[in-house]
Amino acid sequence: MVEPANTVGIPLNHAALLKDELDIVIPTIRNLDFLEMWRPFLQPYHLIIVQDGDPSKTIAVPEGFDYELYNRNDINRILGPKASCISFKDSACRCFGYMVSKKKYIFTIDDDCFVAKDPSGKAVNALEQHIKNLLCPSSPFFFNTLYDPYREGADFVRGYPFSLREGVATAVSHGLWLNIPDYDAPTQLVKPKERNTRYVDAVMTIPKGTLFPMCGMNLAFDRDLIGPAMYFGLMGDGQPIGRYDDMWAGWCVKVICDHLGLGVKTGLPYIYHSKASNPFVNLKKEYKGIFWQEDIIPFFQSAKLSKEAVTVQQCYIELSKMVKEKLSPIDPYFDKLADAMVTWIEAWDELNPATKA
Amino acid sequence: MVEPANTVGIPLNHAALLKDELDIVIPTIRNLDFLEMWRPFLQPYHLIIVQDGDPSKTIAVPEGFDYELYNRNDINRILGPKASCISFKDSACRCFGYMVSKKKYIFTIDDDCFVAKDPSGKAVNALEQHIKNLLCPSSPFFFNTLYDPYREGADFVRGYPFSLREGVATAVSHGLWLNIPDYDAPTQLVKPKERNTRYVDAVMTIPKGTLFPMCGMNLAFDRDLIGPAMYFGLMGDGQPIGRYDDMWAGWCVKVICDHLGLGVKTGLPYIYHSKASNPFVNLKKEYKGIFWQEDIIPFFQSAKLSKEAVTVQQCYIELSKMVKEKLSPIDPYFDKLADAMVTWIEAWDELNPATKA
Repeated sequence: MVEPANTVGIPLNHAALLKDELDIVIPTIRNLDFLEMWRPFLQPYHLIIVQDGDPSKTIAVPEGFDYELYNRNDINRILGPKASCISFKDSACRCFGYMVSKKKYIFTIDDDCFVAKDPSGKAVNALEQHIKNLLCPSSPFFFNTLYDPYREGADFVRGYPFSLREGVATAVSHGLWLNIPDYDAPTQLVKPKERNTRYVDAVMTIPKGTLFPMCGMNLAFDRDLIGPAMYFGLMGDGQPIGRYDDMWAGWCVKVICDHLGLGVKTGLPYIYHSKASNPFVNLKKEYKGIFWQEDIIPFFQSAKLSKEAVTVQQCYIELSKMVKEKLSPIDPYFDKLADAMVTWIEAWDELNPATKA
Repeated sequence: MVEPANTVGIPLNHAALLKDELDIVIPTIRNLDFLEMWRPFLQPYHLIIVQDGDPSKTIAVPEGFDYELYNRNDINRILGPKASCISFKDSACRCFGYMVSKKKYIFTIDDDCFVAKDPSGKAVNALEQHIKNLLCPSSPFFFNTLYDPYREGADFVRGYPFSLREGVATAVSHGLWLNIPDYDAPTQLVKPKERNTRYVDAVMTIPKGTLFPMCGMNLAFDRDLIGPAMYFGLMGDGQPIGRYDDMWAGWCVKVICDHLGLGVKTGLPYIYHSKASNPFVNLKKEYKGIFWQEDIIPFFQSAKLSKEAVTVQQCYIELSKMVKEKLSPIDPYFDKLADAMVTWIEAWDELNPATKA
């Protein structure tokens, strides 16, 4: 079988699953040379590039990729005063891309993430695995000891209730990272040389009622199912905190997925994370989060949404009210964040009028 | 370094971790030839063999193993009328071995389980991995995406609350199976040729609040922490159900571990499961369980133990009362089972008088 080839002669992935239903969102401050390595897998897809920082800078995108690019001026123009909910000088700005997309699925990846190899040496098509994860159900109500029961060669084990085997729709696919693990600043400082070399050949559903640290580096989701909850918060310029954008989104998303009966998967695919960020800079961004999270996590663990909240937007607005009430006493930042959560939903609905609200 | 060798010249595992603190419990109806393959790893340990079925039959144990063997006559003699809580003609009888042990740790393994190989071709020392699992903490309150954070080369990822990083004591280590997966009869019938060939190099904590199907084929636990909850129920001869012994124990154990703040791990080590049991025979044993579990699992999911229940025994007695009240309406069997749960605890305390009760 002859495979199609792109302009530079590298064979394209002939599958290109969901080509017209998926956007790739990339936040960046630099030229996107990293895409060269991804070309065989990602070139068939449309990219939404969210340029962070100085909007006068030009970002070079390798030839042959189909993309739209938004800088801060674009965000301000499109959202007007509601642009205040989009972070500046922080990769949290990526969530603007989720909002302007019109596709059902989103894959978001950092520009320091390269193609990983599996133990046999084969390049991992991360997006293909994310799509597999999103297209097959999740099993959040009971644990399956052989991991993803929907995967080829696996199934539900003895003792797994038959009534739960249909599973639920998967809203989120959380991928992992070889080489530089996603550690916080204190762990980076203590273990500067630790590299993740363990390829764990598994995908699993995170059980209902269990929160997890969602990393935005290598993440895919079903925008129709959970998009409006994928808000990456207020981080970076003018904010007292950074590097908690994806964590914040993950906590909100998990609480809402649990409420709405949607699934969250983690595990495969791996990407190769090339660069450790500076732990001293990270510590400065993170240190408030490190103690705030001690209160935030119990807050999310006990957050109960009402029966009336049946859409993601309704859930998210309820959550914003709880944030204002329960977390504002920790720091005025949470008051501002709760307001931004509301602004985010208003902006989402403005740009996505067809979405059921 | 010269390693010690056993009588047949196979090098013994020089570590023999916890040699004097661990018993290996094996339920069987046949000669234990399978131990030959395990000799390098298991010979240093003491075995408790629980002979099922006809007590007049002689079970041959390979030379060089240190063991005690109990048949039905022994069980009746030791427990008197309380022997009624120990199943007959079912591997559920293994839990008698947990009761007569005086050690802190138990490893139990089926006699059709052989030594597995890891992807590099190295023989897996299952017991050594179980001991590692039991000796390092669990993290049931928040999910760690890089699996066991206590393992070499891994840690807690960004966003994991620092206050939870000490973890909790691990009570159970649930190992998995290559080759024949632990499927129920319907799945066996539908997929007679499915083999598990995927070696997933991970150990993980099952989150608090999540139930799992605990298989007794390759299982280790801390007897001091959870022993009295490891009751394998009434199965086999004279009972309307089989093949739910380990499931029953797993549901009870998990609810009690969650209540007492103890951890349950699953994943490594693998054993090589050699023989698929007969799916038609299994279906006959299982069919009531297959519909009963649809009620049993919601029962355990919502079971709440009281603050007054601070020992495993107290928790277990509370659970037995709930079983009597909530599950007896399904079938009179549960009334009998609830009584047997109480008998089990009485027998346990009789044989283990030093145990705090």
